Amino acid sequence: MELFAVADIPEVTPGDDLASLIRERVDLRPDDVVCVASTVVSKAEGRIADLDDYPAGPRAREIADHLSDLEDREKDPRFAQAVLEESVEIIMESPFLLTETRFGHVGVNAGIDRSNVPDGDLLLLPKRPSESAARIQTELPADQVIVTDTCGRPFRYGQRGVAIGWDGMPASRDWRGQVDRDGREMGVTVQNVIDELAAAANLVAGEGNGGTPVVVVRGFEFGDLPGSQNHFRDLDGDYVRQALRGWSHSPTEGEA
Amino acid sequence: MELFAVADIPEVTPGDDLASLIRERVDLRPDDVVCVASTVVSKAEGRIADLDDYPAGPRAREIADHLSDLEDREKDPRFAQAVLEESVEIIMESPFLLTETRFGHVGVNAGIDRSNVPDGDLLLLPKRPSESAARIQTELPADQVIVTDTCGRPFRYGQRGVAIGWDGMPASRDWRGQVDRDGREMGVTVQNVIDELAAAANLVAGEGNGGTPVVVVRGFEFGDLPGSQNHFRDLDGDYVRQALRGWSHSPTEGEA
Repeated sequence: MELFAVADIPEVTPGDDLASLIRERVDLRPDDVVCVASTVVSKAEGRIADLDDYPAGPRAREIADHLSDLEDREKDPRFAQAVLEESVEIIMESPFLLTETRFGHVGVNAGIDRSNVPDGDLLLLPKRPSESAARIQTELPADQVIVTDTCGRPFRYGQRGVAIGWDGMPASRDWRGQVDRDGREMGVTVQNVIDELAAAANLVAGEGNGGTPVVVVRGFEFGDLPGSQNHFRDLDGDYVRQALRGWSHSPTEGEA
Repeated sequence: MELFAVADIPEVTPGDDLASLIRERVDLRPDDVVCVASTVVSKAEGRIADLDDYPAGPRAREIADHLSDLEDREKDPRFAQAVLEESVEIIMESPFLLTETRFGHVGVNAGIDRSNVPDGDLLLLPKRPSESAARIQTELPADQVIVTDTCGRPFRYGQRGVAIGWDGMPASRDWRGQVDRDGREMGVTVQNVIDELAAAANLVAGEGNGGTPVVVVRGFEFGDLPGSQNHFRDLDGDYVRQALRGWSHSPTEGEA
């Protein structure tokens, strides 16, 4: 398996045809997986906004006030309003705003980016990233497209590449019922391959000035195992999310 | 960047010299990252145990009873005892046992595997996986070694490759202070590269019968950014873990 970044993708602006920008710069094969950073998908789709577009309601003001107290620096309630409008549920309000976006992804600040925005204050995530992936895929010789983002996670430090949208492949590979060398059923159950592909792509993508937002994974073999489209957990099987509901963070001495 | 599995690693047994098993099968280069599945590290280190080695104490019996009720099938209290003995803290007791292992990793059942064990009931994780990585690295021409496992995570379905031990490289890459194309400070902060490398390796490793426990990552460039050895979160910055402390799962109708 081989991964390489597509060189010289120019700054993307609203209305740009991402698929042609990619196609013109790389010879793709049908079994390639093309990983596209959500930042450029959002820019092409014009998901750029200004803080003034989000006059803060009472809930946003309450959240921003609380976070301002906690961090002892002013938080913009319009930013909280933007997060609320991109979300269907607030999972955690402090010490940061963790929500479920309208398309099912759980992330800090609904994934809204305040860097990387040439003509506005905010870069919102694509509205429906799997539909974005499908639109891009249709215009590419490669059969699989993943829209990637980076996010943190509990228990483990730092951020890693994750998939927020995908097309042309299953999200996960199902090992259930497979046996090990001694004929026992295996401990591993379902492997989330699109997150793993996004993580792999992030290793060669870079960020910032040297950022290369499109990475090709060549030679990944899904194999014969059954696949499924399960990617974002349902509340039922998500005990951490259940625990976070109703939990309220009490700042420790160091934070206050 | 290129990834390939090392072919024909034989079944590993206690006392085996993993580094020579690898060295004999692949020409490594100094900048290769060698990802070794914890299963074979554990086998080489003799981390195989029987349930009879863990006579259950009252706490293990209590946990097993509770889980047996929940799932309506008998849970072995000796297994719960093994998990307790491998752990420093129980983070969640039900509907599954989530603990922090002695080396800082948070995982279900302390990562104890009940498949993949030829001569015993249980395969425990390596005692100190970063020390295992260092021991293997010393005997290899490659400068970086990662010991990998797979685990699930909140909010997102399925398991993915993760690093539980590493040597010869920083765990993460620090982008703080880097600016985007427009000179704004970037949203991304710290990238956990060893988890991303483990996830990438898991895409080519396979599991079970066709399992290839050693994967080489060639051509990964850490680059000039500062690195850090932060990998497992401290409780202080881990709000999910704080929320899980003291939370108790109430089974819904479907589960009971």
